[in-house]
Amino acid sequence: MNRFLRACRRETVDRPPVWVMRQAGRYLPEYRELRHRAGDFLTMCRTPSIAAEATLQPIRRFGLDAAIVFSDILTPLVPMGVELSFSPAPHIANPVRCAGDLDRLRPPAPWRGTEFLDEALALVSASLDDDTALLGFCGAPWTLASYLVEGTTSRSFTRVKSFALHEPEVFDRLVDTLADAMADYLRTQVEHGAQAVQIFDSWVGALAIEDARRWALRPARRLLAATAGLGVPRIYYAHGGAHLLHDLADLPCEVIGLDWRVDLGRAALALPGHALQGNLDPGALMGPDDEIRRRTLAMLAAAPRRGYIANLGHGITPEVPVHGMEAFVRTVQGYRYE
Amino acid sequence: MNRFLRACRRETVDRPPVWVMRQAGRYLPEYRELRHRAGDFLTMCRTPSIAAEATLQPIRRFGLDAAIVFSDILTPLVPMGVELSFSPAPHIANPVRCAGDLDRLRPPAPWRGTEFLDEALALVSASLDDDTALLGFCGAPWTLASYLVEGTTSRSFTRVKSFALHEPEVFDRLVDTLADAMADYLRTQVEHGAQAVQIFDSWVGALAIEDARRWALRPARRLLAATAGLGVPRIYYAHGGAHLLHDLADLPCEVIGLDWRVDLGRAALALPGHALQGNLDPGALMGPDDEIRRRTLAMLAAAPRRGYIANLGHGITPEVPVHGMEAFVRTVQGYRYE
Repeated sequence: MNRFLRACRRETVDRPPVWVMRQAGRYLPEYRELRHRAGDFLTMCRTPSIAAEATLQPIRRFGLDAAIVFSDILTPLVPMGVELSFSPAPHIANPVRCAGDLDRLRPPAPWRGTEFLDEALALVSASLDDDTALLGFCGAPWTLASYLVEGTTSRSFTRVKSFALHEPEVFDRLVDTLADAMADYLRTQVEHGAQAVQIFDSWVGALAIEDARRWALRPARRLLAATAGLGVPRIYYAHGGAHLLHDLADLPCEVIGLDWRVDLGRAALALPGHALQGNLDPGALMGPDDEIRRRTLAMLAAAPRRGYIANLGHGITPEVPVHGMEAFVRTVQGYRYE
Repeated sequence: MNRFLRACRRETVDRPPVWVMRQAGRYLPEYRELRHRAGDFLTMCRTPSIAAEATLQPIRRFGLDAAIVFSDILTPLVPMGVELSFSPAPHIANPVRCAGDLDRLRPPAPWRGTEFLDEALALVSASLDDDTALLGFCGAPWTLASYLVEGTTSRSFTRVKSFALHEPEVFDRLVDTLADAMADYLRTQVEHGAQAVQIFDSWVGALAIEDARRWALRPARRLLAATAGLGVPRIYYAHGGAHLLHDLADLPCEVIGLDWRVDLGRAALALPGHALQGNLDPGALMGPDDEIRRRTLAMLAAAPRRGYIANLGHGITPEVPVHGMEAFVRTVQGYRYE
């Protein structure tokens, strides 16, 4: 079993496995070239050969321990009846604003409509050696609901909070619907080669503790319960979740992904039952290589020695120079547990 | 001494004082009318009679315990040589990108160039009764430096982090310059009637703990040391600072302002030497009035009984209905310590 999967199971490894959120992204010249050829982002996602190529680019360049299939957390909303476009911010033409809108949200059962992703997974799977794990992913119910209600990326989450406060039962139904749909969606990904999955709760940091429990963590638990039988490690990524450490402790998943506001040593004490993933500030990769190495080593020193996956605390930004990514990855790859 | 100032000093009060960040704002119809007449935001700030009127509008309507002078954290950058406009996001035409740019940043000594604010403070001061405190404010060095380097509002803070990592000594000089300038700026506000001041560190939440210490808290301490002699309470508002509670404990100011990700009971344990301010989610004011009352009472129950100022955890958003603000304020005003 490879290093990534062993770390998810908290088994001993020679060094921490490493991958990077949004590792197939605009900071890579070969990605920009591929994107230019494809034309637009959704076309890239929907063309299996292109999605597979994007997935493999950072693996070839950096020899990372995990490949994450190229897609977006919003693409599976389309087979549910959502009219989605990117320009480049996501835009939903038919947002969910009332119970009636929710009734028009129809998850396919059994899941279908993302066959392009299945094909991309199969293509990547055939190209990877056993040392590299293949990850699938989806958005967490709260994060997807935020997009569905707001209609785009929000700063204040005014609309989605208003919805949840005024129609709590309808909102619960919305996140439950999303949890069930994403469980089906992840199942198809595992059937097509995903060996682990990450659930992105990118907006859980917008919530007070009480609201996070009801609006984000409760439906996340539902999604996790529905995917327990898949037999693959599941990573719950809690962006901005420094205030939620205590509540994450009994989340029924194998790995908790954290951002850079959390000290990994403290997180390990708070989350003894989970492997941890993270958490260097992507902004740190803008610094000099020596400083990136220093910070990466400090992160590895703070991290638990068993059950740990090195990563950034959020997606790598387009402005990061390739040598910055290189300094980060090579530092982890050169590290050895004694 | 009024309720607000007594709470800052952790003296007994009959009930918590209450005010709201951005209480003079677009959620108020009378504010929108005033803004329409003035034409644009900077003109409002720079016309003392209009700034005073905006300051007083929420006091008249809600009888709040503190008025905060109407302005923006970026306006004092203009006398330092910064070319600032709003459209509506702030835009800086001559951002600070290198040591040479920093050399062109010239804080007036003694402070001058914001006489419009002095006049607005004097006008408001003459209109307020003794029960209502008058607050001045400024941006914290890190937050102002973020705007100066990025040139506008940022999500990823890539440029400012890159600057701080590549030129740490120059960046230290930048935040120190801002700390000293803001100390002078606050002094003029106190001389013209401000009875307390708030320092907004709106972007400290973007920083890992180690970076927050050097880039945000160190210069904030410098600003606080330079304003200790003013004899007025100083509130340091740490937006997104849930991960920094431990580091805030020895910050030499009277009050710590917190956002809604922090449990006030836990904060009181971590910050025994400070009065606390906050922290209802502004998004909660989008909910039904009963729910706003329930959440406000829960907040008051969690807060310390001495040394506490009720507020939102961030500025009130334009979408909040007036009755939502009303439900929040009236709940605090109707509360009594036994």
